[in-house]
Amino acid sequence: MNAFGNLFKIQIFGESHGAAIGIVIDGCPAGIALQEDDFKFDIERRKPGAKGTTTRIESDRPQLISGVYNGHTTGAPIAIQFANETQRSGDYEALKNIPRPGHADFVLQKKHHGFNDPRGGGHASGRLTLCLVAAGVIAKKIINPIAIHAELIAAGGNTNIDEAIADAIKANDSIGGLIACNVQQVPVGLGDPFFDSLESQISHLIFAIPAVKGIAFGSGFAAAKMMGSQHNDAIIDKEGTTKTNHAGGINGGISNGNAIVFEVAIKPTSSTAQMQESINLESNALETFTVGGRHDVCIALRAPVVVEAATAIALADAYLRSKALT
Amino acid sequence: MNAFGNLFKIQIFGESHGAAIGIVIDGCPAGIALQEDDFKFDIERRKPGAKGTTTRIESDRPQLISGVYNGHTTGAPIAIQFANETQRSGDYEALKNIPRPGHADFVLQKKHHGFNDPRGGGHASGRLTLCLVAAGVIAKKIINPIAIHAELIAAGGNTNIDEAIADAIKANDSIGGLIACNVQQVPVGLGDPFFDSLESQISHLIFAIPAVKGIAFGSGFAAAKMMGSQHNDAIIDKEGTTKTNHAGGINGGISNGNAIVFEVAIKPTSSTAQMQESINLESNALETFTVGGRHDVCIALRAPVVVEAATAIALADAYLRSKALT
Amino acid sequence: MNAFGNLFKIQIFGESHGAAIGIVIDGCPAGIALQEDDFKFDIERRKPGAKGTTTRIESDRPQLISGVYNGHTTGAPIAIQFANETQRSGDYEALKNIPRPGHADFVLQKKHHGFNDPRGGGHASGRLTLCLVAAGVIAKKIINPIAIHAELIAAGGNTNIDEAIADAIKANDSIGGLIACNVQQVPVGLGDPFFDSLESQISHLIFAIPAVKGIAFGSGFAAAKMMGSQHNDAIIDKEGTTKTNHAGGINGGISNGNAIVFEVAIKPTSSTAQMQESINLESNALETFTVGGRHDVCIALRAPVVVEAATAIALADAYLRSKALT
Amino acid sequence: MNAFGNLFKIQIFGESHGAAIGIVIDGCPAGIALQEDDFKFDIERRKPGAKGTTTRIESDRPQLISGVYNGHTTGAPIAIQFANETQRSGDYEALKNIPRPGHADFVLQKKHHGFNDPRGGGHASGRLTLCLVAAGVIAKKIINPIAIHAELIAAGGNTNIDEAIADAIKANDSIGGLIACNVQQVPVGLGDPFFDSLESQISHLIFAIPAVKGIAFGSGFAAAKMMGSQHNDAIIDKEGTTKTNHAGGINGGISNGNAIVFEVAIKPTSSTAQMQESINLESNALETFTVGGRHDVCIALRAPVVVEAATAIALADAYLRSKALT
Repeated sequence: MNAFGNLFKIQIFGESHGAAIGIVIDGCPAGIALQEDDFKFDIERRKPGAKGTTTRIESDRPQLISGVYNGHTTGAPIAIQFANETQRSGDYEALKNIPRPGHADFVLQKKHHGFNDPRGGGHASGRLTLCLVAAGVIAKKIINPIAIHAELIAAGGNTNIDEAIADAIKANDSIGGLIACNVQQVPVGLGDPFFDSLESQISHLIFAIPAVKGIAFGSGFAAAKMMGSQHNDAIIDKEGTTKTNHAGGINGGISNGNAIVFEVAIKPTSSTAQMQESINLESNALETFTVGGRHDVCIALRAPVVVEAATAIALADAYLRSKALT
Repeated sequence: MNAFGNLFKIQIFGESHGAAIGIVIDGCPAGIALQEDDFKFDIERRKPGAKGTTTRIESDRPQLISGVYNGHTTGAPIAIQFANETQRSGDYEALKNIPRPGHADFVLQKKHHGFNDPRGGGHASGRLTLCLVAAGVIAKKIINPIAIHAELIAAGGNTNIDEAIADAIKANDSIGGLIACNVQQVPVGLGDPFFDSLESQISHLIFAIPAVKGIAFGSGFAAAKMMGSQHNDAIIDKEGTTKTNHAGGINGGISNGNAIVFEVAIKPTSSTAQMQESINLESNALETFTVGGRHDVCIALRAPVVVEAATAIALADAYLRSKALT
Repeated sequence: MNAFGNLFKIQIFGESHGAAIGIVIDGCPAGIALQEDDFKFDIERRKPGAKGTTTRIESDRPQLISGVYNGHTTGAPIAIQFANETQRSGDYEALKNIPRPGHADFVLQKKHHGFNDPRGGGHASGRLTLCLVAAGVIAKKIINPIAIHAELIAAGGNTNIDEAIADAIKANDSIGGLIACNVQQVPVGLGDPFFDSLESQISHLIFAIPAVKGIAFGSGFAAAKMMGSQHNDAIIDKEGTTKTNHAGGINGGISNGNAIVFEVAIKPTSSTAQMQESINLESNALETFTVGGRHDVCIALRAPVVVEAATAIALADAYLRSKALT
Repeated sequence: MNAFGNLFKIQIFGESHGAAIGIVIDGCPAGIALQEDDFKFDIERRKPGAKGTTTRIESDRPQLISGVYNGHTTGAPIAIQFANETQRSGDYEALKNIPRPGHADFVLQKKHHGFNDPRGGGHASGRLTLCLVAAGVIAKKIINPIAIHAELIAAGGNTNIDEAIADAIKANDSIGGLIACNVQQVPVGLGDPFFDSLESQISHLIFAIPAVKGIAFGSGFAAAKMMGSQHNDAIIDKEGTTKTNHAGGINGGISNGNAIVFEVAIKPTSSTAQMQESINLESNALETFTVGGRHDVCIALRAPVVVEAATAIALADAYLRSKALT
């Protein structure tokens, strides 16, 4: 299912090498100032160009198809679309019958009985995160003044990220990365216990981002090793400010007014320049090969803004729900 | 929102010290053999009684209110209910105005303007995971022969868990734990890219379990430190078997036929016997106190079966969807 | 699927002759005064007892299992349950293999491969509308001061309803009825164009009531015969008051501030005392028989409060959505 | 909300005078043959051109943006878009402050605080039913061999429809119409009691069509005047064939294998050439005026294919659900 949300409802579509990709947002309040320029900053942050990123450069210009009039949202569904301009499907012909390790080639082919669009990952392509970023721009406006900041804090295990990239390029390989996300000015009361817990909503969207392998809130996996007396966050005032923030800003699935903090693990880009092994589904022979195409050495470099967008979407949905029900 | 699922649709209700807790399941196929006894094994695994678990003992007998007839599911909604038999609300009176650190007391009070049921965490109580376990029993039958196994692999950072519990009891404190979950015999093709990725669905439900701080699939957070050539799982046969399983059995959000593996971090029980600090919302003074009531030294001891249930529910929904669409 | 709603989310369960029937409501704001007595008036209106109604008398006492504390809603899911006290399943034994015309016996048996609960219609029984009435009581409180009034305006084609019932009893047959529903004090702006049109939402719930055959808003089927100049409602003030109300209070799927008016057609109770024909699924022979059990001569007598409840639920969901988004 | 469906999930977007309108379909099985030509027949049926229809002629060429590859659906979301080519927004300038009777002008302006796109009804325009027709083409393929046929059986109360149109043109007015829909080869078992009743699903979508005032299944409003002995449909064979079809092919919310039959009332086009009255929201004066623009004398002429599409979408969702659960 490529739909998400109860109130801020999004539906994503498109393929890496099709005509266009896009997203439809239903449930955006009317009267929010919105123009093409508003998307620039976040879209630029996701764009390749820096060292360690792919050489496939698209203009990534958002077309506002609907839901915006005279520079403001109208209350009607907002459709945003991005043309695919530099398709080079030929890159993928050579490996037609050899599912690339780490990619969705094998599962999509099996699941859809060979009818999937195989070019560049088809609908499972990381290119579609561009649509998340676009929806995130609108979500951020809805939840304003809540402020989300995500950044890459390590790549390939190295906190000096320039060095990490340089090493990976030298090794002719790809590397993973660790992203930290911090959300400030969160009101108390977003989320609900159980299935609408804020962690459930955020993690749901974070794992919608290809290449994410883990998410941990507050103390995260360290919590498993801690004692309750250490882990509990003493509440020090009537606003609920806590002395520490092991909870990561959420108790019982509900925001507690402190910063929401979590970390996200991103795996190395599957399309490494190194030799790989896979099965040839036609000949049934194991093959050793390298994957062509234009790829990122460290996709995590471009992921922080996507993490922000996913977080903003989850919070926008929770915020609108809280507006309705509390 | 306390509803989840698209086809296997569940809605949870109840409070720790109310009349009963329960769950309604809509979307269970007819003709599945089901009787009260089928719940026993999993419910026993969640029950306290062992060292390190609470002394609040409930019979936890599932009442099958609807949807079952002549020992089989009928296709109609299944309502399962558990009476609360040993309420001791008095335990909570003393701390009425002092929100317990680590608990949802503060957020529920703020969110619901003081109308929340404060007794024992109210609706946010871990007791409601009993309902998840019950739904999990049915979900497991639906996805049969998929087999889910979760276990506690460390507590308080110690893989000798008896020792870990003994140490925590000695320290008069609570401890967290790490749970590993492994799912065998998963067909290729469950899940979809993006918002219905299997990781999105599973994590959504895992974070519905109180006390969970993190989830990581396959290589998890280690992936952030790895290189692509290391991380990619070579595909070695036509069934998609991979040499390694860093992916954790999922590519592009879709099960790849290998075992689904993930780890879950559980924080220490917030109700430790140690001294704690919090604000008195009436007097506005900081107070130091201990929390009474009947609590678990290591709630993670009882959590593996809940993790299994959450996983089974996510897989049942994905499986039914896949049955409809592929 | 027995769930409905986006914000005011309900899930229904139970069978006519099972242990109990019930409904779970998620998405009810906290702080609404609610006690058992509040259900009395509407439940009494649905109760049989008057001439023309069944002799199966249940106490229909609502048990508030969860979500209510100290006489107010808590913000947590509300579960309401009604015990089935006077099951007389034996009534249905005789016709086990002969699907009753007009009932769901045949379709449920086919759909669920014989696993359905056949007693008294099982989950498809009109008895479950009691749960709708209960949810309606809460929905009415949420949308207050919106006031819904439904009444039976004709039975068996006769606007003198006492006479109509007397005639039907004399004829030893059952009769249908026509219900008019009028909603006052509706704010402008509930609903959306297309899939969330107020007519879509209301009709969805009205057709969830067994025995409903049609719904028509405002001018209804007469509109098909009218001219635009006649049908259009002239707008006479800034509040949107219209001279006529052919629209039935809704334009473009959105409430226009005038009364919402619609009519609902209820078919005659299928369980008439007259001779009927059906197939014996075991012998494959056509049989002529009468249906025993305790039934209503005119189920429409008891339906107005159910129509009100369905309307209130639709409006509560739309109202909460409008609170979030406008 | 402009989303519908549980499995066959659609989301609609666009405005009458914006860049384009479109629909996204998630939950379409892979491997269905689909090309642009497949849409032609149904789109032509909705197109104006005949006497009594608007002179705004658009090419209505469907652009398949995603989800189709090599002439087949891929299993990924399908986005279909239609450019708006002949916007004549100027037509609407004159009446900027005078909400047109029968239209959504007033409610959209109030609901969205003046931020709505007012041109030609904006998002509430009947033009968007083109998107429904497109989704209907795909839905019809999914439910094949189920065959849906809708036709206009009366206009302005006259069953001679050519005459009715000629009369309306002579009267310089618009007229309503009555549509009959008949669905053949329906399997037993689509739909569920209560909220997922087939009538609930179909009516939900039928009322998503602008200008619909009523829907009635089988005997419809006549049922309210009938006796049970007359109304009940005798079951005459093991397949559930009934002697009569007052039920309209549905019992207990579930298809019974007989034809599904229902009627839909369409109001006269609100934009009549006759003089009308409304309030000037700026001057607060009542005004008498005529509405310019290009309109239909009898919109019902173009509606049968839209009714078919709405029905197909409801059935596709129910069919896929039934495939998953039975």
